Amino acid sequence: MTPDELEAALRAVGAERYHNLHPFHHRLHDGQCSRAEVQAWALNRYFYQSQIPIKDATILARMQDSALRREWRQRILDHDGEREGDGGIERWLVLTDSLGFSRDYVASTQGILPATRFAVEAYVHFCAERSLLEAIASSLTELFSPQVIGERVSGMLAHYDFVDERTLAYFTARPPQAQRDSDFALAYVREHATTRELQQKVLDALVFKTDVLWAQLDALWHAYVEGHRPPGAWSPEA
Amino acid sequence: MTPDELEAALRAVGAERYHNLHPFHHRLHDGQCSRAEVQAWALNRYFYQSQIPIKDATILARMQDSALRREWRQRILDHDGEREGDGGIERWLVLTDSLGFSRDYVASTQGILPATRFAVEAYVHFCAERSLLEAIASSLTELFSPQVIGERVSGMLAHYDFVDERTLAYFTARPPQAQRDSDFALAYVREHATTRELQQKVLDALVFKTDVLWAQLDALWHAYVEGHRPPGAWSPEA
Repeated sequence: MTPDELEAALRAVGAERYHNLHPFHHRLHDGQCSRAEVQAWALNRYFYQSQIPIKDATILARMQDSALRREWRQRILDHDGEREGDGGIERWLVLTDSLGFSRDYVASTQGILPATRFAVEAYVHFCAERSLLEAIASSLTELFSPQVIGERVSGMLAHYDFVDERTLAYFTARPPQAQRDSDFALAYVREHATTRELQQKVLDALVFKTDVLWAQLDALWHAYVEGHRPPGAWSPEA
Repeated sequence: MTPDELEAALRAVGAERYHNLHPFHHRLHDGQCSRAEVQAWALNRYFYQSQIPIKDATILARMQDSALRREWRQRILDHDGEREGDGGIERWLVLTDSLGFSRDYVASTQGILPATRFAVEAYVHFCAERSLLEAIASSLTELFSPQVIGERVSGMLAHYDFVDERTLAYFTARPPQAQRDSDFALAYVREHATTRELQQKVLDALVFKTDVLWAQLDALWHAYVEGHRPPGAWSPEA
């Protein structure tokens, strides 16, 4: 494949498997979620957010090149912020605050679904164990996130009186960061996936990452929409 | 806690969270599963079976004591067998053979649910990353397996004409092995969990393992009972 053909194949993975196609995404932005379902989504996704800088530091630790590390470290700065009260994780906690969770409870992650934990930890392990090229390729779901974030924010603001622009500030900040990050990662894989075998590994890495995102929404749906909450998970009634 | 109190607390974890309480277990042994659901269960659980000797070798590699390793290595022998055509994994493949899967397809694991993969890999990682005491404690679900296997086999033989004693031979062989293994692991944690903190780690390890098992049945239920099959997973129609 040429680099353009590889990029087209990567975009096709997104078109077929990105979690904007998941029923929970539609339910969330169409206003069909109960407050408890939005709470469960925010609580569980906190764990994903919290592990992103761990994942990125794992990748950073595998980069032998200063210029590459300078580029990649910005992701950690974005999530952890410049100072206390700043950064993507803090903005996610503003959302969980507004939904009535204490920060200690959210940060403990004790109420999240085991399936959330397993999926997110699989992502961190993938970035530790696979090649650097595959680890970078697994971040390419960011190619598809600006659009889904736009749908999500406008839909949630229109339908739920328990969120507002302030509590959804995480999503306002993300799209330009995601655009910059995915531009860089896409250019990297276009340049470095130079054989059919490497190109297949890049595609498989993106499929893996879409599975990580999809599995989290499957678990939310099963537990909180269908009502099959596993032992120990957060209960809206508790 | 005294060792007896610790054992009682461990047995209470099983009584509250072991996967014999999961609706899929009841559905399976009550004869309510379709053949496709039994196929999906066997296909997915193959991946769990296939990783058990990996998990046990991971633990074995962390044991500094010959006597301890001699004890633990038996688990690997049980799963991998004495020769080609022998052992627990082979017996599991006899089941998937009988359900119409090719061995290449099963061994490729390409059709399993991502949630199965994430849960099982979480178990292997747990045994690599946590203390040896926690890794051994996480095996204690075997305390509860002889009973559940008895229910499962008699129920499946009574209700499904597509299984028989030969294809369920895995389960006939397991109970004495599980009994021996869990006797050993229980004695080990009773002896080595000598502080309240270590006892809590042992209990948490068993909770973790029940989550690993439960999450696999949740994923099966969501995908094949409710019909929300994630992209790429085995399809009964294909």
